[in-house]
Amino acid sequence: MATPLLNCDMGESFGAWRMGLDEQVMPWVDCANIACGFHASDPGTMRRTVRLAVEHEVRIGAHPAYPDLVGFGRRSMACSAQEVEDLLLYQIGALEAICRAEGTWVSYIKPHGALYNDMMRQPDLLATVIRTIARYDRSLPLMLLGQADNRQTEALAQEYGIVLWLEGFADRGYDANGQLLPRTLPGAVHHDPQRILDQALTLARGEPLIASDGSALHLRIDSLCVHGDNPESVAVVRRIREALEALDPS
Amino acid sequence: MATPLLNCDMGESFGAWRMGLDEQVMPWVDCANIACGFHASDPGTMRRTVRLAVEHEVRIGAHPAYPDLVGFGRRSMACSAQEVEDLLLYQIGALEAICRAEGTWVSYIKPHGALYNDMMRQPDLLATVIRTIARYDRSLPLMLLGQADNRQTEALAQEYGIVLWLEGFADRGYDANGQLLPRTLPGAVHHDPQRILDQALTLARGEPLIASDGSALHLRIDSLCVHGDNPESVAVVRRIREALEALDPS
Amino acid sequence: MATPLLNCDMGESFGAWRMGLDEQVMPWVDCANIACGFHASDPGTMRRTVRLAVEHEVRIGAHPAYPDLVGFGRRSMACSAQEVEDLLLYQIGALEAICRAEGTWVSYIKPHGALYNDMMRQPDLLATVIRTIARYDRSLPLMLLGQADNRQTEALAQEYGIVLWLEGFADRGYDANGQLLPRTLPGAVHHDPQRILDQALTLARGEPLIASDGSALHLRIDSLCVHGDNPESVAVVRRIREALEALDPS
Amino acid sequence: MATPLLNCDMGESFGAWRMGLDEQVMPWVDCANIACGFHASDPGTMRRTVRLAVEHEVRIGAHPAYPDLVGFGRRSMACSAQEVEDLLLYQIGALEAICRAEGTWVSYIKPHGALYNDMMRQPDLLATVIRTIARYDRSLPLMLLGQADNRQTEALAQEYGIVLWLEGFADRGYDANGQLLPRTLPGAVHHDPQRILDQALTLARGEPLIASDGSALHLRIDSLCVHGDNPESVAVVRRIREALEALDPS
Repeated sequence: MATPLLNCDMGESFGAWRMGLDEQVMPWVDCANIACGFHASDPGTMRRTVRLAVEHEVRIGAHPAYPDLVGFGRRSMACSAQEVEDLLLYQIGALEAICRAEGTWVSYIKPHGALYNDMMRQPDLLATVIRTIARYDRSLPLMLLGQADNRQTEALAQEYGIVLWLEGFADRGYDANGQLLPRTLPGAVHHDPQRILDQALTLARGEPLIASDGSALHLRIDSLCVHGDNPESVAVVRRIREALEALDPS
Repeated sequence: MATPLLNCDMGESFGAWRMGLDEQVMPWVDCANIACGFHASDPGTMRRTVRLAVEHEVRIGAHPAYPDLVGFGRRSMACSAQEVEDLLLYQIGALEAICRAEGTWVSYIKPHGALYNDMMRQPDLLATVIRTIARYDRSLPLMLLGQADNRQTEALAQEYGIVLWLEGFADRGYDANGQLLPRTLPGAVHHDPQRILDQALTLARGEPLIASDGSALHLRIDSLCVHGDNPESVAVVRRIREALEALDPS
Repeated sequence: MATPLLNCDMGESFGAWRMGLDEQVMPWVDCANIACGFHASDPGTMRRTVRLAVEHEVRIGAHPAYPDLVGFGRRSMACSAQEVEDLLLYQIGALEAICRAEGTWVSYIKPHGALYNDMMRQPDLLATVIRTIARYDRSLPLMLLGQADNRQTEALAQEYGIVLWLEGFADRGYDANGQLLPRTLPGAVHHDPQRILDQALTLARGEPLIASDGSALHLRIDSLCVHGDNPESVAVVRRIREALEALDPS
Repeated sequence: MATPLLNCDMGESFGAWRMGLDEQVMPWVDCANIACGFHASDPGTMRRTVRLAVEHEVRIGAHPAYPDLVGFGRRSMACSAQEVEDLLLYQIGALEAICRAEGTWVSYIKPHGALYNDMMRQPDLLATVIRTIARYDRSLPLMLLGQADNRQTEALAQEYGIVLWLEGFADRGYDANGQLLPRTLPGAVHHDPQRILDQALTLARGEPLIASDGSALHLRIDSLCVHGDNPESVAVVRRIREALEALDPS
C-alpha cells in the first residue's frame, strides 16, 4: 500500500474574510482542495491559493459545491442532475483557467460539504458527478469517502473510466460500514493529537480501525483528509507528515 | 477586405428569466458572445447556449463582465487591475469547461457592458485585459470597438502577441473619431431596418460612414455586432446575413 | 362565506429581466404577493411594484423565499429553523421599508415556492413561520393552502395569535385531502379558461370540488390564487373578477 | 459641547466567516453601525448583532452599502440616484424588521465604505441619501464626516428636516479642510494608542487638531468612530471610553 496523500481544504477565504491557515499548512500537504466560488472563495482568493500551491508543488483539486455562500455549501439543495452537472463544470473550469494562467492545472475533483455528503448517500447523484467528470476530462480522479465496501462506487467509476481516490479521516470516528459518525454522537470527532496521529498511521499501514460497535474496520485509502483551520490542527498535519515520511523513507 | 463576421450577445437569460431570441438569431450569425454568469446567465443557461452554438457551427466567445447581476454589468465598478484579471479568468474558464463538455472551445474574448466601455476609455484597463488573455491563451483574439485610429490599441496587442478583432455597429451613429454617439444624443441609435442594412454594407465594403459632424469616417472592421433582442432585430440580422453573402458569394 | 380575495404573485422581475404582466393584472386583483429579492426581484423592482399596487389600491403581501435566485426559490434548501426565521424577517423588512417610503405597508405574508411547499409538509417549519410572524407583527395574516382538514394548522396559528388566510387554486386539480396534485400527474393543471372559471366560482360559493379520486372535496378558502404570467392568464383573472362581482354585487 | 458618542462598525461577519470582535467592543460603545447584507452580514449575523446591541443597551444604526460582498462595499459603483434610494430602503428595512423582532429599532443611518466616501464628495448623492431617509423616517439622524465647513451639508439636511450626526476619527490624520488624509499618505493612520487617545480627547473637548499643513483645524463632532477589529483596537476603545467618562462624569 502506498503512503496516502495528505489532502486539505484550502482557499476558503472570501473577499475581505479570512479562513484557514493556508500559508502554514500548504508546506505539509500533497493535495489542495481549492474552493471555486460557490461555497467560499472568489477569483482573487483562488488566484492567490493556486500560486501558493504552485510554490509548494502541491497538486490542485477542484472543490465544487452547491451555490450557497451564506451556508458555506453545507445545506443540501434540491438540484436536478442537470443542474449539478452544469454547476460542477462551471466551478471546475473557473479554477482551471486560473491554474492555466499560473502554469498549472486541476489534478482531481473533490465535491464539498452537502454536495459531498449527498453524493455519498445518493447513487444517482454520484453517477451524475462521475459522468460530469468523464465528459470534462476522463483523466481526473474523483476523491470521495473510502468505506468498508466500495464495490458499487468502483463499478460506477469503472463504467465511466474514472479513477477514484478513496480518502480517510484521522480525526473522525467510523461506524462498522465505514461511514463517518454524525458529529452529534460521542466519539465522532477526535481532538487528542496523539489519537489523531495514531489513526493516521493505522490507516496508512492498511491496518484495521476499531469501529463504533467494536468491530474491526478495514479501510483502503489513497488519501488522508487533514485540516488547516488553526495552529493546533496545522501542528497535527506536520506530525502526520513526518510520521508518514518515517514510515516510507523513499 | 474580408466579409465581416456577425457577432451577437447570447445566453443572457438568467435562471427562470428569458432574454434574447437566441434560437432564432443563432442560425444567422458567426460568433456568439456568451455571458458567463457575472452580468447574466448561469451554468445551465451557458450549457444550453453552447449546445445551440455547436448545433449551428457558430464560434463561441466569452463575454465576461463586472460582477453585477442586478445592474446587468452596465454599472462601472472601481475594480483593481488584479481584480479584473482574476474575474476575467474565472468567467472565461467557466465557459471553457462547459464548452469542453460539449466538444467545443472558447474562440475569442469580448468584454461586456461597462467593462467594455471602461476598457475602451482607459488604456490601463485595456492593457490588463490584453495581458490576462495573453496569460490564459495567446491564441484568443480580443474583440473590441474599431475606431478611426486604432494604432495605440494595436501596439498594445502586438506587445502581448494578441490578435484584435475590431467590431463595428450597423445601428449606431459615430462621431468623427469613430466613437459611438452616447445613447442620449439624437442619431445615436438607428431604428430603420433599411438604414441599418445600408450601414452594414457600407462597413462591409470598407467604404466610409458619415460621422455626426458630417465628416467621412473610415472604419476597418473584422466583425459587425448585431442584436437578437426581438423579432424585428432578428429580421434585420437575417437581411444583413443575406446581403453579406450576396456581396461575397464564395 | 365572503367573496374570496384574488391574490397574485407580483414583482418577480429581476434587474434587466422581465417576468409577469404586473401592469395588466394588478387592476383585477385584491392582493399582490411581492417578491423580496431572494428568489426574484431587487430593490428597484420592489419599489415599482409597490407603487403599482398603491395606484390600484391593492393590498401588499410579502412573498419571501429561500435564497436562490438561479433556482427561483423552487429548490428546497436544508435551512435551520433559526435561518428560516432570520431570512423571513430580512425579506419582510426590506419590503416594509419600501412600502413605508410609498406611504403603505405590508398586509400579510405568503411564503414562496419551495419554502411554501416545505411549510405545508413540515409542521416544524410551519411553526417557525408562524412564530416569526408573531414576533414581527401579530396582526399580519399568513396565507397558505386551504386543505380538507385545517385543524392542526389552525391550532398552531391560534397558539401564536396569528390569523390564517386559506387560499385555493382555480386552475389546479386536488386529491381527496385537498393537496394539490403534483404537476407530473394528468389533471394537475387546468388550461381551459371555462374550467378555471367554473372552479373559481365553485370555490367562491363554498360548494365542493371533485377530487382526483372522484370524492367531494369541501375547501373553505379566503383567497383565490391567480396568475399574471401571460395575456391568456390575465384574461382569465379578469373573467374571475367579473364573475365574483356578479356573485356578490355589494 | 456634549461628550461624543462612540460609534463602531459591527456585524461585519458573513456566513461562516468571522470579522470583528463585536462581543468585546460592544460594552464600550454607544452606537453600533450594523451591516445589512450588501457589503457584509447576512440575516443570521444581523440577528445576533442586534441581540448583542440590545444586551448592552447600544443604539443601532443601519450601515447600508453598495451591493458588493466580494469587494466589502469598498468599490465605487455607478448607481443611479433611484438605485441608491431603493437599495438604502431595502437594507434599512431588513435591519429594522430584525430589530422589531428583538424589541428594538433602527436609531440612525450611516452609509458604508465607497457609498460613504462617494456621498461626502458628490452633493447629488448626499441629497439622494438625505431625501431617502426623509421619505422613510424623518426622525432618523444621518451620520457623516464632520469637516471644517459643514454649512452646505447642514443646509441640505435642514431642507429635508433631517438631523446630522457629525463624526470624527481619533486615529486618522486630517487635511486643512477636515478631509481624512488618503491612506496612501504618511500620517494618514495613527497606530500609537496614546496618540489616538489624545486626538479623541482633543476632539471631545472641542479643541482644534493640527492639520497636515500645520494649520489649526476646528471640528465640531457628535460622535467618534472607533474600531473593534483586534484586541489592540478594542483596548484603545476602552481607554477612550474611560477617558471620556472622566471628562464628563455625569
